[in-house]
Formats: sequence, structure tokens, C-alpha cells
Amino acid sequence: MNDQVEEMGEIGRRARKAAQVLATLSGAQRQKALASMPERLLAVKESLLAANSRDVEAALKSGQPEPMVKRLLITEKIFQYMLDRLREVAELPDPLGRVLEGQTRPNGLRVEKISVPLGVVGIIYEARPNVTTDAAAVCLKSGNAVILRGGSESLQSNLVLADAMSASLQENGIPADALQIVRSTGHEAVEAMLQMDQYIDVLIPRGGKGLIQAVARGTRIPVIKHYEGICHLYLAADAPEAMAVNVAVNSKIQRVEVCNALETLLVDQEAAGRLLPPLVQAFREKNVELRGCERTRALVPGLKAAVEEDWRTEYLAPVLSVRVVDGVEEAIEHINTYGSGHTDAIVTQNLPLAQRFVAAVDSGSVLVNASTRLSGGGDYGMGAVVGISTDKLHARGPVGVHELTSYKWVVYGDGHLRS
Amino acid sequence: MNDQVEEMGEIGRRARKAAQVLATLSGAQRQKALASMPERLLAVKESLLAANSRDVEAALKSGQPEPMVKRLLITEKIFQYMLDRLREVAELPDPLGRVLEGQTRPNGLRVEKISVPLGVVGIIYEARPNVTTDAAAVCLKSGNAVILRGGSESLQSNLVLADAMSASLQENGIPADALQIVRSTGHEAVEAMLQMDQYIDVLIPRGGKGLIQAVARGTRIPVIKHYEGICHLYLAADAPEAMAVNVAVNSKIQRVEVCNALETLLVDQEAAGRLLPPLVQAFREKNVELRGCERTRALVPGLKAAVEEDWRTEYLAPVLSVRVVDGVEEAIEHINTYGSGHTDAIVTQNLPLAQRFVAAVDSGSVLVNASTRLSGGGDYGMGAVVGISTDKLHARGPVGVHELTSYKWVVYGDGHLRS
Repeated sequence: MNDQVEEMGEIGRRARKAAQVLATLSGAQRQKALASMPERLLAVKESLLAANSRDVEAALKSGQPEPMVKRLLITEKIFQYMLDRLREVAELPDPLGRVLEGQTRPNGLRVEKISVPLGVVGIIYEARPNVTTDAAAVCLKSGNAVILRGGSESLQSNLVLADAMSASLQENGIPADALQIVRSTGHEAVEAMLQMDQYIDVLIPRGGKGLIQAVARGTRIPVIKHYEGICHLYLAADAPEAMAVNVAVNSKIQRVEVCNALETLLVDQEAAGRLLPPLVQAFREKNVELRGCERTRALVPGLKAAVEEDWRTEYLAPVLSVRVVDGVEEAIEHINTYGSGHTDAIVTQNLPLAQRFVAAVDSGSVLVNASTRLSGGGDYGMGAVVGISTDKLHARGPVGVHELTSYKWVVYGDGHLRS
Repeated sequence: MNDQVEEMGEIGRRARKAAQVLATLSGAQRQKALASMPERLLAVKESLLAANSRDVEAALKSGQPEPMVKRLLITEKIFQYMLDRLREVAELPDPLGRVLEGQTRPNGLRVEKISVPLGVVGIIYEARPNVTTDAAAVCLKSGNAVILRGGSESLQSNLVLADAMSASLQENGIPADALQIVRSTGHEAVEAMLQMDQYIDVLIPRGGKGLIQAVARGTRIPVIKHYEGICHLYLAADAPEAMAVNVAVNSKIQRVEVCNALETLLVDQEAAGRLLPPLVQAFREKNVELRGCERTRALVPGLKAAVEEDWRTEYLAPVLSVRVVDGVEEAIEHINTYGSGHTDAIVTQNLPLAQRFVAAVDSGSVLVNASTRLSGGGDYGMGAVVGISTDKLHARGPVGVHELTSYKWVVYGDGHLRS
């Protein structure tokens, strides 16, 4: 057994033990520990920034691409954001011990369904150090122990962050092992982590499609998957021009590299002649490359043709595919065929049309007269999230503190027997 | 591609299509279809019983073991039970379209979390024909299409059942493909089913541990697992004698071959001298073989010794392992080490002790002063269930109509943008 596998086994055993303690601590204790973390981070700010500089220098030296190095950097703004998120998560209502439902049965048996932690959550992620604080906070608030396996590029920063947060746990009577960082940067450590079904209850990979697929295929531990967002906006026949253009533009370019950004615009044939000209103008002003279906190109001369592959592509870039559809049914059909079940939207003033779209589009988030960029934990009032699930089982959409809980059935009798 | 694989692909495509229709039908329509099924079954009763006789004869001829043949047989009692269950599920409140939570955000955005079907459910099960009606009813009530792959031994019976139920669907405007039976009895059909992640949203294997493990290991489709029930009862120091004996005996022998039957009895050392003699007498009268730890055997001469393996065994037989423990903490430790997270119980009159036990035992059902046999969908007011999940994600404990739903976030704005 090599050192990495040995390290992982040790981490797993400790996490399981910590999870057992954590499961029965009070919400006040977890809250207090989380609330004390910003102060701890402020106290180690100097050594954190020094560690982060070492991470950044090493990344530059090893010739990492610029966007990756940029993601590594803990700027003052990001540092403040990390503190704010910790405070925000600390103050969320306790997700544990909620009576989700309950009744007294005809035979007098009192039956309650109570929220409890999942146990041990494993997070596998790439370069952003703020995921370390965000994800740890959400897991701990939900009473779970967490094992963090961040990108090797941010290890020095992550170690300082984790040490500070673990110290906060310990001074509040919570086992420091409730938050552990994997120090091994090699492949064997991740491989070992994927096999630890006796210690880890759920894995959450955060990163590109390749990472998520590799994790999902390589493990028997349940995985909460955060696949791509091929998001659609359907402009119905009656879509008001200003709202249609504003929602389309905001959905596409408010931030292009994120999962709830718009990738395909569907325009009703009855509205195409009216809406396409102002849409094309608005997108051209914003330097968005448009790729159109044949009907779109007939109305907008000089447009690049969209090919089959375009309908299946998450561009994450200033590119937008555009298709004219016969009506809401064709829009629904397109979305359920090519979409990724992440976020889709409609602009219409017609109530039955909106109802039909909402009922038939099979996606985690369906928005009416709102930008696709508004789908997410913050806008839904969930606070910090560890990702946006494209699964249908357990968690769908934003994964916050409630989505990291399970439940148990608790039954009180007075000597009740089965007859 | 062989015939079985081809059949499965066809079944999958049809199920997916039916699921899309089913997802937007009204609850009244699903209810009406289910409510009409008992009449349909009564109309085909003769051919059902004839088909069932053929199944039973074939099983006898091929030398199947007697308990298996017994499970195959549709007796009058079982037939009535099937009808009752269909009626019961039909009358359950609609699990779809529930607003699980909702709020209007400070920016005026209305956010709702709405229950929706999972899509297509695949059930892989063994010989009991009543699973065909039970599981189909629960899936359809939840708006899911269902693919049933029953034991080959019950195929003739299952085909008659499925035809009658499909006819009920069709006459109520629901695609008949919402309920399909796999006709291929070969191994390749199951293998193909496990690979159909584009068509099946969740697999539920019902049967022995071997079947469940084989399914879970052979697929990337999410699996709701129904593993064994190594159930415990802890008799606290203050457990009243009559209640202790009655709950222990009922938990063990009311029905020995089921997953919520008692397998290990934990007796507090302070109560052992008082409780073991009447317990031993009661179990001996019921012909239950006892296997004790050393401390138990010191108090009950002539008892067979329990070995390590006993603590890990789901007997499903009139055998019970007995251990004397130092107190509630040792009981909890034993249960969380050797248990299967299914169902565990305590008998005590001491409130803090009960609270500690309920909080620390990591099981789907934890009962206080009640028989372990009372854990389950019926006793929790859930109606028919398709199994009892030993997973922690998605569904834990009984899996009824609500556990076969997902949700979507529906957001209504008035041209809302992200700033």
C-alpha cells in the first residue's frame, strides 16, 4: 500500500468518527464554530496570502494557462467574499432536526420524519480556493464531516484555510477532523477516495464534464453531478420586444462562462420577423457571434449556419445558436431533446402558454419572464451552495444545506406490537 | 444485436415517450386509470389464475424449491390483496404538483419548488406476482412510466396482469407503454436494462442481497437499494418486564422472514438478571434458538455461544443473538457497527435515554417502545411501497409515491434580469 492510499484510509476513518460526533451536536454549536471562522481567517490573512503567492508562482513557473492562474489568486475582493459567505452560512437556520412530516397514527403510534446529516461528504474540485471555504461551510452547517480534495495548484492556500477553520471547530468542541484536506496531490489519492464507500456517503465533483464523468464512472459512492448547462430561452409569439431583447441579452452575456448562461435562443415563427432584427442588433453590439437555423438565416442575411453540433454545445463563450420554431410544442421538443435539464426560460404574456412550458420542460429550473442567470441558490434564497445538480434523484438544481441532509423515521409507541 | 437487447431498446424508447406524456396528465386521470384496474383484473381473473397455474406447474416441473413455488401462487387471499392495494394507491393524494416550498424574493421574483415525476422507473424483482401490481401502481400514481422485469417463473401471470392494467391506462387516455413487462427471460435482457441510462431514471431491485449488489455494481443508473435488515432491540436498565418481553417477542417472531424482524437483542447489564429469565422462557416457548455473548451465557446456562459472525447475520429465521451491554452508549456503538441502518428500537421509560438513542442510532427507522415490525410504509401512513431503502440519499426507509418523485424549480418574473 503506498503512502497516498494510506493517507486516504486514515482520513476516511477520522472523518467517519468525526461525523458520528457531529451528528448529535447542537445547531448552536455548529453555528458558533462557523461564525468564528471569519475572525480566524483574518488572523491568518498574512500567511494565507503568502501561501497563495507560492501557489500562484508555482503555477506560473509550471506554465499553467492564464485563466487557471487567475482563478487561483485570492484577491482582496475574493477574500472578503469568502468571509461574507462563511458569515451567511453560519446564520442560516439549522437544516437538522427539522420535523419534515409527522402524524399520530390511528393506533396511537407517533411517527416523525426528521432531517439528519448525510455523514461524510467528499468534494473533489479544481483550482478556486474559495470553494474550500464555501463547500466546507455548507457541509459543516448540515452536520456533515467533509473531505476536500482541491486542485494541487491551490494546495498551499487550502492548507492554511483548512487549518484555520479546523481550529475554529476545535475551540467550539467539534472534532477538527470534521474538515480535512487531502495533502497528496497524486492521482492515487483520488483513486483511493473513489473506493472509500465505507467512509464517504456522497461525492460532489466540481469542475469540467470530464472530471465529473471520471468520478461518476470510477466509484460506487453516490455522486451529486453538476453537468453542463445547455440553457434555452423561448420567445413566444406574443413576447414583448423590450422584455424579449433584455432577457435574451442578459441571459447570454451578463456572464458568459457560467452554467446558467444562455446557449440557444428559440424564436416563435410568428414573432421571428418582429424580434430577430432588434435581437441581432443587440447581440452584434455586444460582440456575440450568432449561428442560425435555415429559417433564421432567411430572415437575417449573412448569418453563420448552426449545425447539429451547435444545438448540443455549451459554448461558455460569446456565441449563441438561434432557431425559429413553429410554436411552444416544438420549443419544448427541442429543449427536451438537446437541453441538459439545467435551466430553461420562456418570455410570454400568455398564461396557458407559460403553464404548458413550465409543465412540459423537464429541467431543474424553468423560468418565466426572467433571465436564465437568475437560476441558482442565491436567487432562490438558499444561501451558499456547493453546486447545481443536473441529477433528478436526491438533489435537483442548487445544492445547499438542505440538499446535504438525509432523514430518519422516528417512532414513539407505548409498547406497540404488530398484530 | 440479439433479440433481447433489441426488445429492451424498444421498451426503453417507448417508456421514455410515455413518461413525457404522463408527466403532464392530471392527477385525476392517473387516479381514474388506477381505480379502474381492479375491475379489469376481476374481468380477467379466470385467465390470470390459468396463467398462474401454468407458472406454478412449470416451476414444480423444473424442480424449483417449495418456498419459491409458494411465493408464485396467486391464492384468493393474494388476489384480493392485489385489488385492495390498487384501490388504496388510487385513492392516495396526488404526489405531483405539490408546492414543496415557495417564496417571493425581495426583487419580486416568485420562486416555487414543485414535485414532478422521476421519469422512467425500472423494477427488477423475483417471483411474487403481487409485486407486479403493487410496484406498477406506486410508479404510475407518481406519474412515472415503469418497466417491470419480474422473475421468469412468474412471466405468464405477469403478462396477464400487465395487459389488464395497460388496458385500463389506455381507456383513460394514458399511453399503454407507461407500463411494460420485459418478456425476454434471459440474462441479456437484464444486462441491456442496466445499460439503458438514456431511458431509465432509477432502478429498484427487489430481492436478495446478491441481486441488489449485482444491479448496483452493473449500472450507472441510480439505484434505490433495499439491503438487509439486521435489526436490533435495546432493553434499557429500566425497561418494564412485560413491555420488554412483548416487544422483543413480537419483533422477532410475528413474522421471521422479513427485513424488519429482530435479529439481535441487546440487554442492559443492569436489567440482564431481571429480564433474561423471562425472555429466555418466552423465546423457548416460541421455539426461537438463542445465541448469547459470554455475559448472557453466564446468566443463562446451556445457551449456545454467539460468534462474531452472528452479529452480522440477518437470520430471517427463528434464531436470535443476544448480547449484554454496559449501557446505552455500548448499545449505540454495537448497532452502528454491526447494524444495517434499517430498523432499530429501544424499550425504556427514561426520556433522556430515549432521546440519546434516537439521535445517535444511524438508521432509517428508530423506534421507542414499539416492535421493529411496525417500521414500514403501511404503519407510517404511506400506503403501498415498492421497498424499504437502506440508502441515505434520495429515499431512506419506506419508498412510496413521494419517494418516486423529483422536483423542479419554477420561477415567475416580469422581465427580471441579473445585475
